Amino acid sequence: MKSVSTIKIRTSSRSDMVDITSQVRQIVSESGISDGVCIVFVPHTTAGITINEGADPNVCTDILGKLNDLVPRDGRFLHMEGNSDSHVKASLVGSSVSVIVEKGSLVLGTWQKIFFCEFDGPRSRRIYLTI
Amino acid sequence: MKSVSTIKIRTSSRSDMVDITSQVRQIVSESGISDGVCIVFVPHTTAGITINEGADPNVCTDILGKLNDLVPRDGRFLHMEGNSDSHVKASLVGSSVSVIVEKGSLVLGTWQKIFFCEFDGPRSRRIYLTI
Amino acid sequence: MKSVSTIKIRTSSRSDMVDITSQVRQIVSESGISDGVCIVFVPHTTAGITINEGADPNVCTDILGKLNDLVPRDGRFLHMEGNSDSHVKASLVGSSVSVIVEKGSLVLGTWQKIFFCEFDGPRSRRIYLTI
Repeated sequence: MKSVSTIKIRTSSRSDMVDITSQVRQIVSESGISDGVCIVFVPHTTAGITINEGADPNVCTDILGKLNDLVPRDGRFLHMEGNSDSHVKASLVGSSVSVIVEKGSLVLGTWQKIFFCEFDGPRSRRIYLTI
Repeated sequence: MKSVSTIKIRTSSRSDMVDITSQVRQIVSESGISDGVCIVFVPHTTAGITINEGADPNVCTDILGKLNDLVPRDGRFLHMEGNSDSHVKASLVGSSVSVIVEKGSLVLGTWQKIFFCEFDGPRSRRIYLTI
Repeated sequence: MKSVSTIKIRTSSRSDMVDITSQVRQIVSESGISDGVCIVFVPHTTAGITINEGADPNVCTDILGKLNDLVPRDGRFLHMEGNSDSHVKASLVGSSVSVIVEKGSLVLGTWQKIFFCEFDGPRSRRIYLTI
């Protein structure tokens, strides 16, 4: 068993939230670890990771829409690559989530799903996990 | 000793910050664990958790007020439950905090307290802890 | 080996981002720990910690500038010390980051650096680390 696992995804638009809960659950299950904490980490600087509601896809649309309202792409920025808004959103949302593992399962609330947050896609992205 | 502990609280308004530091301290103390990291996790999607100043209650009022300014309840949202702002705030603040435990005590700065952040109350809420 | 290490820095302006990656890397290296998670924690309530791009310093300028746009110092605040904006920014950015350690090294993406975020400087500040 490797101590660090990798999830690979492909995002489909500039702003995107991808539910990775089932992949995380599978890695936790395969690890055989009963109790601990799962750290899910994004090694990118224009993406983030968050836990939010997965039942209604409009929640993700609203989160991404509001982040775009707060940090529009064409703000007054110095960084020349045209993706400063993506870097700001990455720091607002954060680069990792910690989820408790109990009896081999993720301890998540009824409505909670783990979402990779793309802020400068579409791109191929990686997510690292350790338990 | 259970590996995961639960704190139950009742919030008192739609936006609310509840200081749970003493409950966290007590669970850490009872665990008998000397050194490690305490993960405090919120299993809800319209609430968050943060560490900030506890001496002046106006700091919490200002944080909640500013979050309401940035993400007003009646924004242009698609999610039909009328609490999209709460979901956005939850992702801005985050679903967990990590606090170092040394010699059986939480390592917090002089002014730091751990606050449960209610964004869609009043409600009964749970917080999970593991060390 | 102490279980908790301290990094001391001096920030140079009211809003400032200080790259502490090399100090974190050195502490991880000296710990001799091969695999785990490094928790980097800020014991202050008007500062935060984030992971973002370190290649172009304009990225930090843009992040701090945008945070100042979103949470201006002279907003409608009750807290009398004139630094409510700093407390709000601290909760938006967060008080800790978690970085995976594999084979004795920090697992960071190509462009990722760990930044202490000063929101009420210049000041002398501390950062705590445990692995």
